[in-house]
Amino acid sequence: MKVGIIGATGYGGLELIRLLHNHPEVQGIDLFSSSEEGMHFSHKYSFLMNIFDQPLLKIETDRLAEYDVLFTSTPSGVSSELLPALIGTKPKLIDLSGDFRLKDLPTYEQWYKKDPAPADAVEKSVYGLTEWNTPAIAKAQLIANPGCYPTAVLLSLLPLIKENLIDASHLVIDAKSGISGAGNKPSQMTHYSETNENTAIYKLHEHQHIPEIEQAIQMFANQSTPITFTTHLVPMTRGILATSYAPVNEGVTEADLVNTLQETYANQSFVRIIKDMNKFGTNQVYGSNYCDIHVKVDPRTNRATIVSVIDNLVKGAAGQAVQNMNVQFNLKQTTGLSLVPLFI
Amino acid sequence: MKVGIIGATGYGGLELIRLLHNHPEVQGIDLFSSSEEGMHFSHKYSFLMNIFDQPLLKIETDRLAEYDVLFTSTPSGVSSELLPALIGTKPKLIDLSGDFRLKDLPTYEQWYKKDPAPADAVEKSVYGLTEWNTPAIAKAQLIANPGCYPTAVLLSLLPLIKENLIDASHLVIDAKSGISGAGNKPSQMTHYSETNENTAIYKLHEHQHIPEIEQAIQMFANQSTPITFTTHLVPMTRGILATSYAPVNEGVTEADLVNTLQETYANQSFVRIIKDMNKFGTNQVYGSNYCDIHVKVDPRTNRATIVSVIDNLVKGAAGQAVQNMNVQFNLKQTTGLSLVPLFI
Amino acid sequence: MKVGIIGATGYGGLELIRLLHNHPEVQGIDLFSSSEEGMHFSHKYSFLMNIFDQPLLKIETDRLAEYDVLFTSTPSGVSSELLPALIGTKPKLIDLSGDFRLKDLPTYEQWYKKDPAPADAVEKSVYGLTEWNTPAIAKAQLIANPGCYPTAVLLSLLPLIKENLIDASHLVIDAKSGISGAGNKPSQMTHYSETNENTAIYKLHEHQHIPEIEQAIQMFANQSTPITFTTHLVPMTRGILATSYAPVNEGVTEADLVNTLQETYANQSFVRIIKDMNKFGTNQVYGSNYCDIHVKVDPRTNRATIVSVIDNLVKGAAGQAVQNMNVQFNLKQTTGLSLVPLFI
Amino acid sequence: MKVGIIGATGYGGLELIRLLHNHPEVQGIDLFSSSEEGMHFSHKYSFLMNIFDQPLLKIETDRLAEYDVLFTSTPSGVSSELLPALIGTKPKLIDLSGDFRLKDLPTYEQWYKKDPAPADAVEKSVYGLTEWNTPAIAKAQLIANPGCYPTAVLLSLLPLIKENLIDASHLVIDAKSGISGAGNKPSQMTHYSETNENTAIYKLHEHQHIPEIEQAIQMFANQSTPITFTTHLVPMTRGILATSYAPVNEGVTEADLVNTLQETYANQSFVRIIKDMNKFGTNQVYGSNYCDIHVKVDPRTNRATIVSVIDNLVKGAAGQAVQNMNVQFNLKQTTGLSLVPLFI
Repeated sequence: MKVGIIGATGYGGLELIRLLHNHPEVQGIDLFSSSEEGMHFSHKYSFLMNIFDQPLLKIETDRLAEYDVLFTSTPSGVSSELLPALIGTKPKLIDLSGDFRLKDLPTYEQWYKKDPAPADAVEKSVYGLTEWNTPAIAKAQLIANPGCYPTAVLLSLLPLIKENLIDASHLVIDAKSGISGAGNKPSQMTHYSETNENTAIYKLHEHQHIPEIEQAIQMFANQSTPITFTTHLVPMTRGILATSYAPVNEGVTEADLVNTLQETYANQSFVRIIKDMNKFGTNQVYGSNYCDIHVKVDPRTNRATIVSVIDNLVKGAAGQAVQNMNVQFNLKQTTGLSLVPLFI
Repeated sequence: MKVGIIGATGYGGLELIRLLHNHPEVQGIDLFSSSEEGMHFSHKYSFLMNIFDQPLLKIETDRLAEYDVLFTSTPSGVSSELLPALIGTKPKLIDLSGDFRLKDLPTYEQWYKKDPAPADAVEKSVYGLTEWNTPAIAKAQLIANPGCYPTAVLLSLLPLIKENLIDASHLVIDAKSGISGAGNKPSQMTHYSETNENTAIYKLHEHQHIPEIEQAIQMFANQSTPITFTTHLVPMTRGILATSYAPVNEGVTEADLVNTLQETYANQSFVRIIKDMNKFGTNQVYGSNYCDIHVKVDPRTNRATIVSVIDNLVKGAAGQAVQNMNVQFNLKQTTGLSLVPLFI
Repeated sequence: MKVGIIGATGYGGLELIRLLHNHPEVQGIDLFSSSEEGMHFSHKYSFLMNIFDQPLLKIETDRLAEYDVLFTSTPSGVSSELLPALIGTKPKLIDLSGDFRLKDLPTYEQWYKKDPAPADAVEKSVYGLTEWNTPAIAKAQLIANPGCYPTAVLLSLLPLIKENLIDASHLVIDAKSGISGAGNKPSQMTHYSETNENTAIYKLHEHQHIPEIEQAIQMFANQSTPITFTTHLVPMTRGILATSYAPVNEGVTEADLVNTLQETYANQSFVRIIKDMNKFGTNQVYGSNYCDIHVKVDPRTNRATIVSVIDNLVKGAAGQAVQNMNVQFNLKQTTGLSLVPLFI
Repeated sequence: MKVGIIGATGYGGLELIRLLHNHPEVQGIDLFSSSEEGMHFSHKYSFLMNIFDQPLLKIETDRLAEYDVLFTSTPSGVSSELLPALIGTKPKLIDLSGDFRLKDLPTYEQWYKKDPAPADAVEKSVYGLTEWNTPAIAKAQLIANPGCYPTAVLLSLLPLIKENLIDASHLVIDAKSGISGAGNKPSQMTHYSETNENTAIYKLHEHQHIPEIEQAIQMFANQSTPITFTTHLVPMTRGILATSYAPVNEGVTEADLVNTLQETYANQSFVRIIKDMNKFGTNQVYGSNYCDIHVKVDPRTNRATIVSVIDNLVKGAAGQAVQNMNVQFNLKQTTGLSLVPLFI
């Protein structure tokens, strides 16, 4: 397979290189850039010396159409301009941005404050939450790869909402993320001295992943409810921990929740249900494609606390993108992705 | 004033030394230890050289009775044995442990898995949430200084619950803490390589601060409800950020919440209501005695998100203890405590 | 005393506010900005709410001349334009930038790649390494406050070079700094995700503090030698640890080095010689104006290792600036500076 | 190949599992423990769930003799008791501890304060600095895998000393390490709150890697000289950066140094010579088996600064151990080790 990555200098792009470099079915990787064409990538990023020494290529639609698969890991608004012209051509398209995730275009405009992608392209795209949409992904040309927060949240909540075990109308989701989710562009928000030794809440009630989560709950669990979802930055590079809270429905026990999660993911390689835990954290999955989930019911309040962890750059971005590529090409989902977490 | 600190080698004790060293009414500080009597403190902690070079003193009740004020910053179960004998003697007693916080002794036993303090000593003690209990603190000999989490949570929620603006029966509190809250004793839980680059949930539904928060809601806001309260460790040394969620009651607006908070704390020096924010974090209060609070209502869900930050070792421990001492001795609450946050 | 700070939004400026806020001789602080005049400072930095709520003032020479003391904490090239016009007017001037530090103007040009300050202004300025230049500082109007690295390095080495105990011609200095030394302007160099979990060397052999250290060795220890000095960034916000290596001269013992250091600083409040140590680090002095020094001779190589630690924003910038102000106004050097380190 | 790991719960052991899990020639891995026999490993370390779910096995010499290769990742003094009995049996033996590294037994005793391994076993062991000892490693049964610091230091210095380009008698080596090098046992030294936001020097002039480096300089570069080598802890988990300083010999240029390094490692996959750099740090090699080296001569002092970075747990421990296994089994050195660094 011949692979192209557009937007390789972003963190999603760098992580794609890390994963695809050891993917057994990938023959060659080319990187495309709108602004740094011709630049030798390992001059900028010497950590890639001897690994990826080619120059960046110019983005040209004709050229792009020759690849087997193209990943776009670009800022909002780029792939919505670039990809529609490639629909119907050879390459499978996997977009890591938010441009094709929201089916309702006014919702996109409202939350992203940008023009949406063309309606027919959005319609043809398939939401790439792998474990929940495998058949559609297998047949799709264009994948809207999920956001990092939605991946952590949805994998842990969808089984419970779908089976009507928890009351989604009272759902509260409190998510904590490492700083790499903010990308590679320096800003006051990501300036070391103001980020280190600081846990902060940001974009309160305004994060663009809110409508993405609500849409997926509707799509996969058939419930429509506005959710409370907040995002926090914690001083670490990688990792998301999402803590969700909801009342359990009448007669539902903790065992019911655990069993439903275990059954849902019994045949899935990347979702692990952790039963006993003393301390449960993001280092469980660091650098890997796992999503680990723990659930516990508080008998005092009859409320469930559901916790999930992912590496935001792997299962929350590049890893799930490669997993989707595997599905599209009918490979085993774990191909190239059997990475052991760097617990330390 | 002559001050004694028992348990000075713990982090609460070290922070008391830091604050009291510059307190204008404190003439001398003595440190007491059960295990390291005679040891020159600045040999163990050379950062205190030229600041505190005396030897640690032996704990003897007679000797202790000569001080104007005694702080106990000891593990659970120590001050409940030590302090009852000092009730009725000269020194004001300020206990930073949890031994005297819970008025209901079986509740203490259940959550702390320890024998409670003697009933009459517990009865005489006063809960030292300064802004909410000033008159009682002023008259008390024995103060049960609040826990770090309860301080952050209660200061932000009590005004809203008391005025019936939010529905406490659906209250969910998600707290994030730096690692110093776990104290100075090494363990796997606080081992650098497993704590760094890791955000983790721990003691799920079992944290001993849960009954302390519920008791204070009953005491100061006159509502009785079991709460959902979870605790997370984030990779930083100091700071707590508590994010609380509750439906707003019928007809209540965001402005009502903000106004109530502002009015409640209009004459308080250490509680600040932050109205506009882009990113709101623990570095706002690092090293200081402030508690900063922000509140916002999501019109989509009609739920309020209430966020508060403190430095767990200052407002959450030693700082509030000194503030209580100031109240007991009829000093201005800010005496010795006008520290500017180390934002960076 | 009426104090003005120019460049208050930088980290040196913020730290000056923190220190001067509790300085007993300071009546009022005004902040000046070239770009954000009129802005209410605590709107930008809400951590200063209730502490500093005034608007930023416009920089006008006439207005500035009314202050008792002015601090400039500005990027290279700003104070060299601003301060010469104030020479001979009322205010004491303390410049935290490098503009007036180098007496040899071509050297300034070579290392800073900028036009130097006017020659007569440079000539009138006094290098503010407090412990080594107190009499001159006491009489000076314009102080060139030392760089952070030079402060850590010079305090530990000057006594040993001056007394001819070590061979300066073989001096190697390896310095490690927290990220706050790079200031508040975001860049790839200080972007969290590329700075965290990374120890890096930068500006190899090209750091502008090299000529400053060499000049001071000439000035205070009367030796002229080019030095090897390297700078590293470590993933923390505050602190510098400098490790210096030099052969000890014929017949010199470790005790000679220790004694000379102890005697040199016997009457100095902020320099501490630490004799025994197992682990010796920057947290010894965090947030305080101390410089701690440890020295040890390796009998296998007859080489001394000299280690010193400071908080780069305090003793390495704002703290030493306030110490110099105290000297200029004939106050006790410790006035407003008796801060206990935040060891944790 | 059937692989056994003794001491799997240490960080070297966990990293071996991470690497060997994806090694194409490894059929099965068994873990041995002296203290936790029978324990299901993924109960203790749930991050290994679905990856390694077997119980820990008991250490019995007969059983061990059936493996193709055994790794010992144990505290000092364990493998010196365990491995001699296996010499002459089937398995290749790779010891990650320091027990077999020092050929001179009194030197071992002096620096390790322990009894040395039996003399004949030490004699038969081969020092596993892969790039410098490949032929001997290929023929050896027992490999003494190098220490983390020596690996970083020696790879960068040996070519320059061997070719007589730098003056080793004035060599100064200043090394900085992440905290994982201290292992998984909690102590005050590795307690988060005293390690975070702290750069510290430790074991000054007394680190047991000093004689290991000196022995290797003698062995591979044929020079005998005591060195100055210091070790620092920086607040990060993984990574070593070693900065070395030495005068260049008469007539030697920077180009000579660079060329010698490039020629020495021209056919080596894991050593990269980085020519241009602005900021050069440990994140270049995070999680990978690379050692990156940069060298620069300061014309002002005629001294060279040589910098090298490794991941202490990979090239500095488990990665080099697997590389040595590959050599012993005549596999390509990169087999199972073509990991791309996690730059972020």
